[in-house]
Amino acid sequence: MTLKLSPPDSFDRAKMNDLIKRRFFYDNSFAIYGGITGQYDFGPMGCDLVDNMLAEWHKHFVIQERMLKVNCSILTPETVLKASGHVDKFADYMVKDVKSGECFRLDHLIKQHFEKKMADKKTSQEEKEIIKRKINLLEGMTMEEMDGVVKEYDMKSPLTGNDLSDAVEFNLMFPICIGPTGTLKGFLRPETAQGIFVNFKRLLEYNQGKLPFACAQVGNAYRNEISPRSGLLRVREFTMAEIEHFCDPDDKSHNKFSQVAGVEVTLYSACAQMDGESAKRTTIGEAVRGLGLPSLGLLSTPMEVGALDFFLSDRSYILGHLPTQADVTVREALNQSPPPHFTHASRWYRHVESFGHNERLNFPGERRSLEQLTGGRQKGLVANETLGYFMARIQQYLLKIGVNPKKLRFRQHLSNEMAHYACDCWDAECLTSYGWIECVGCADRSAYDLTQHTKGSSVKMCVERLLKEPQMVDSVVAVTDKGAIGKAFKKDAKAVQEALASLSSEESEKMDKALSENGEYELNGYKLSRAMVPSFKKEQKKVHVEEVVPSVIEPSFGVGRVFYALLEHSFRVREDDDKRTFFSLPPVVAPIKVSVLPLSSKQDFVPFTDKLADALTELNLPVRVDDSTGSIGRRYARTDEIAIPFGVTVDFDTVNNTPHTVTLRERDSTEQVRMPIDEVPLTVKKLADGKILWKEVTDKWPKFVAQETTK
Amino acid sequence: MTLKLSPPDSFDRAKMNDLIKRRFFYDNSFAIYGGITGQYDFGPMGCDLVDNMLAEWHKHFVIQERMLKVNCSILTPETVLKASGHVDKFADYMVKDVKSGECFRLDHLIKQHFEKKMADKKTSQEEKEIIKRKINLLEGMTMEEMDGVVKEYDMKSPLTGNDLSDAVEFNLMFPICIGPTGTLKGFLRPETAQGIFVNFKRLLEYNQGKLPFACAQVGNAYRNEISPRSGLLRVREFTMAEIEHFCDPDDKSHNKFSQVAGVEVTLYSACAQMDGESAKRTTIGEAVRGLGLPSLGLLSTPMEVGALDFFLSDRSYILGHLPTQADVTVREALNQSPPPHFTHASRWYRHVESFGHNERLNFPGERRSLEQLTGGRQKGLVANETLGYFMARIQQYLLKIGVNPKKLRFRQHLSNEMAHYACDCWDAECLTSYGWIECVGCADRSAYDLTQHTKGSSVKMCVERLLKEPQMVDSVVAVTDKGAIGKAFKKDAKAVQEALASLSSEESEKMDKALSENGEYELNGYKLSRAMVPSFKKEQKKVHVEEVVPSVIEPSFGVGRVFYALLEHSFRVREDDDKRTFFSLPPVVAPIKVSVLPLSSKQDFVPFTDKLADALTELNLPVRVDDSTGSIGRRYARTDEIAIPFGVTVDFDTVNNTPHTVTLRERDSTEQVRMPIDEVPLTVKKLADGKILWKEVTDKWPKFVAQETTK
Repeated sequence: MTLKLSPPDSFDRAKMNDLIKRRFFYDNSFAIYGGITGQYDFGPMGCDLVDNMLAEWHKHFVIQERMLKVNCSILTPETVLKASGHVDKFADYMVKDVKSGECFRLDHLIKQHFEKKMADKKTSQEEKEIIKRKINLLEGMTMEEMDGVVKEYDMKSPLTGNDLSDAVEFNLMFPICIGPTGTLKGFLRPETAQGIFVNFKRLLEYNQGKLPFACAQVGNAYRNEISPRSGLLRVREFTMAEIEHFCDPDDKSHNKFSQVAGVEVTLYSACAQMDGESAKRTTIGEAVRGLGLPSLGLLSTPMEVGALDFFLSDRSYILGHLPTQADVTVREALNQSPPPHFTHASRWYRHVESFGHNERLNFPGERRSLEQLTGGRQKGLVANETLGYFMARIQQYLLKIGVNPKKLRFRQHLSNEMAHYACDCWDAECLTSYGWIECVGCADRSAYDLTQHTKGSSVKMCVERLLKEPQMVDSVVAVTDKGAIGKAFKKDAKAVQEALASLSSEESEKMDKALSENGEYELNGYKLSRAMVPSFKKEQKKVHVEEVVPSVIEPSFGVGRVFYALLEHSFRVREDDDKRTFFSLPPVVAPIKVSVLPLSSKQDFVPFTDKLADALTELNLPVRVDDSTGSIGRRYARTDEIAIPFGVTVDFDTVNNTPHTVTLRERDSTEQVRMPIDEVPLTVKKLADGKILWKEVTDKWPKFVAQETTK
Repeated sequence: MTLKLSPPDSFDRAKMNDLIKRRFFYDNSFAIYGGITGQYDFGPMGCDLVDNMLAEWHKHFVIQERMLKVNCSILTPETVLKASGHVDKFADYMVKDVKSGECFRLDHLIKQHFEKKMADKKTSQEEKEIIKRKINLLEGMTMEEMDGVVKEYDMKSPLTGNDLSDAVEFNLMFPICIGPTGTLKGFLRPETAQGIFVNFKRLLEYNQGKLPFACAQVGNAYRNEISPRSGLLRVREFTMAEIEHFCDPDDKSHNKFSQVAGVEVTLYSACAQMDGESAKRTTIGEAVRGLGLPSLGLLSTPMEVGALDFFLSDRSYILGHLPTQADVTVREALNQSPPPHFTHASRWYRHVESFGHNERLNFPGERRSLEQLTGGRQKGLVANETLGYFMARIQQYLLKIGVNPKKLRFRQHLSNEMAHYACDCWDAECLTSYGWIECVGCADRSAYDLTQHTKGSSVKMCVERLLKEPQMVDSVVAVTDKGAIGKAFKKDAKAVQEALASLSSEESEKMDKALSENGEYELNGYKLSRAMVPSFKKEQKKVHVEEVVPSVIEPSFGVGRVFYALLEHSFRVREDDDKRTFFSLPPVVAPIKVSVLPLSSKQDFVPFTDKLADALTELNLPVRVDDSTGSIGRRYARTDEIAIPFGVTVDFDTVNNTPHTVTLRERDSTEQVRMPIDEVPLTVKKLADGKILWKEVTDKWPKFVAQETTK
């Protein structure tokens, strides 16, 4: 995540935060007890907005794509997270103030220190250049390297000026003991994905054994952040909405890809980032098929080798496919098995440079496309159709709920930030006053997770795939003496026969050897003798299916981050009054759809207000009645603040004239029409569901102008 | 909760569990790693069913009642749960197997031991009588008393026969450390309610300072159960849906009560339970107004005194209202300050008996109604309109989602099981194969929670209530020397003046004394001298409002328990084939609304199947396409199993004849009609939303009979 301070045009974060706090969209948890960092409570507005975002998410993904959905445990035993790699790897580096004990995240501390130095007039130009370079290197540094930087610059605690401890790794998971004995160790899950992976077999069965299928999960996850800041962007408790799409590893096409191929996206590729270029507009179809970015289809510069390496994450594959004329140094460097953070082309370039060669990447006369070099596995910038399909669908969802399309891009992970098993990963990033922030990740995780859990649990996680044509395979089969086995095991004889029939060739050979050497062999607890299994024979078997571990494409939504970006993108200040701030949320996600405002507190207004509010409620529309004594303008402003898109005013004309009419107002334009009160509920329902637009209302009913400013 | 084994008519739990597991409604979490007790993963069917139940809950309560909704942190600092009482009191008693370390919940262990003894032929009738009595007493026993029972009967570990440790209290909350230093202790919340209470001030402000209002929250809670059993009924991680309705403590009427007064409910009152009577049918109106149960309006027997005590939970109030002729022993017993579990009439009876009196409850000639005795605070069986209103709404909700009305009752808490602060509490219980299980609690928690958090946080949680007429109150006010204060504090002078103006009378007196004695006083960090505040004067102030702490009525849903009861209530076996089991869930909560089944795998069926499925999906209806090769009857059975209420079959007539028609089938009746394919999507949408009934479909379209059994 890049956290640059590049505030969009005239956005005033303090002003927005004031509104958020005042109308309780969200606020610090447990504030009456002094609050707690990194935890937030969502008030009525925030809670309803999140719920509406998730309801739309459910429709957009789960229902429209006919996905499965699960809801799995958050308390997770250690063995599960050991297998997934979280116990060993899910850590940040941390230093402590040696006196106060205050903890700091190491990379943040260094960055903060450097930023201060960069802003300092006393820092020379030369020093600034060095610091700039070090900031760029920061993300790929080991703990020891970072520790070296802290010592080199003699960094102290930014709060107290005290010395800092050596760096340590701090695992971000919250440990927990399950049950009363304290012996069953576990953690609060750090992501929802694992719950889907451990249920893979059940889900596959539910899907009648067929690929592809997708499974979604929405729920909480927990990360014990070292020093959370940046409001909702870095918290200890958060909601994720994740999808795991399981597909054939050799066929990542998507049957609905053609429906999204024309969707325009802004892509900020790994190469563009490395080359200091900007993001590019293209269609997702071009990005996957590689038509729009031909320069990427060639391989001759170090950058291109790096890019290839990046795309494939498979060094041995590159070695096998390198042009024969490739400089020996390329092979040498590849064989050096550089650590993962060297696979990035620019780093690798430096690494290779350390060998003292300069002409090492010379492939004279041979410029081949990426597609040729990868045997068709990789054509364009985005690794495959399924990944591209989800990127387009993610964008459609974000725009539907109100994200500003000009402040949305997809950034490709650099290889040093991508998990080592991932093939390709694109983050949907939103531009906010904190810079571009990652809101949705979309990664091709390959077969990593299922492979890990197969190892961890000894339960095989794979699918059977029909072979194009049956194959003959050699197998070693036990020849049994049924009589001897029946006599020895009686009612268990059948089970023993079955166990013998299902032996693999390796097991058969092992057993044959053991019986020859020791005369007996234990199988599933049964002691077998040579007499029971006199011999083994070699057979040819016809096999129709093969087992493959599915690949996983994972769109993963940080719900709180999308929520925050949405608030920034929809925050508005009225042109004529900079104290009137509001959120311009689309009706589909607005927490309350309509307000009812009686112009007077006189008793004869009450039946109209009540009847209208009840009729709206009857249609399951969240309604807010504001019968307080403020001026109508002030009450409109209050309803605008909480993003209510439509407001109905019951005025003196309503009460005194038949047919009874009211005014209906739209939040963003502040336009009003006058219409019969009985027409209001269904009209608002259609507006709220997005079935009609405001324009259709203003076309149909006369405009009304007087009310907003009058008492 | 009563956990009697009284299975309903011919229900086969093993058969249902087989279906639940096979079609992955839910199952043990982390099963591939051996599973874990007390935790469950909800598969596609279970997850969608819960989501639909909660969506309906949101409409029924949050939208229809215009409630606020929040989503608060689960990680909760210790101070918060100390104030709420959970740190000290949220515990069960536990014994350990001294050798294996296995833990047992004490009351469960005793009950299990006794049940075994009761079933033993060797146990004499006399012994059985004693054991029966002890089982009845169990719930009110102290830890020491229970420990005594364990020793008296020489109980051993039921698993190993080993000796058991002495009993200990075991707090059921999961402890957790927040942040990297390990110093901030907390817990996973054991209920969602506290998040609402700590946000009370913000919510009140959001509601513009007015009572009553309600706030809802849906989310996870955690209890580290000692030895969870009984499937979903006792788990460590569960979803709650709670509502806190804040109202004037002296006015618990409800403005919509008249809308539900006629709702018939089955009430199992505390008195009926104590007297061994059965539950009674009445209307909620009668239950609140006390018309239907006149015998409860009188107070002359020990039972009635107990009932009164029970209703009020306020011994001093009873003492003040006792008839003057009341036997001295009654007063004596009340003044004994019996421990809470003695307040139950029958226990109290025994307690009083121990004083050696027999005529202690003699109120000659004076039989007064409960209403008279409570000064109008308590009229009927249910404490007040708001409590009654929610009971009726809870019932309406449960019936809407498919709970069997014959297997639903409200059971009033006995005073020894009710939290000591509660005024009245009724559990909505569902009859299952585990007996009557508590699914929804509905309690009047009085002002307890807000009072506790006011104490804990020093932040006042109350509302201002307009006095009927203004009152004059004495107050002590500081007379200040503005010049001296201005000179001393400059720009802070205004803040100092304001602080002085807002002093309470007590603070003023304290300050006056301190200034006289020491010559100075520190106020909000400002040092004040006598010269700045030369004197204090007494004033009479006119006061228009008073502060009161709101009462809380709390409907609290155990979502997993409602879910389980719903499954049992809707489990069905086809009369003609006992292998065909299914769930008869109402369309509104059914996970998938419609299936599409092509009768043949021929290519010309595909366009019809696809187009229909897409059209249904377009209407946001969850659809399942089953194009597998099984017979149509078998495929219907598969869709019935997962409760799909409607099924469309694309057959040869569809493909060959125009207009293209299909069959539409209803799950419970297995009736089918033949209708044009284009009419299907909207018809199913209306059926799924409950806008039309199946009968309207069979009235309109010709019945179809042939298909179910043919290939």
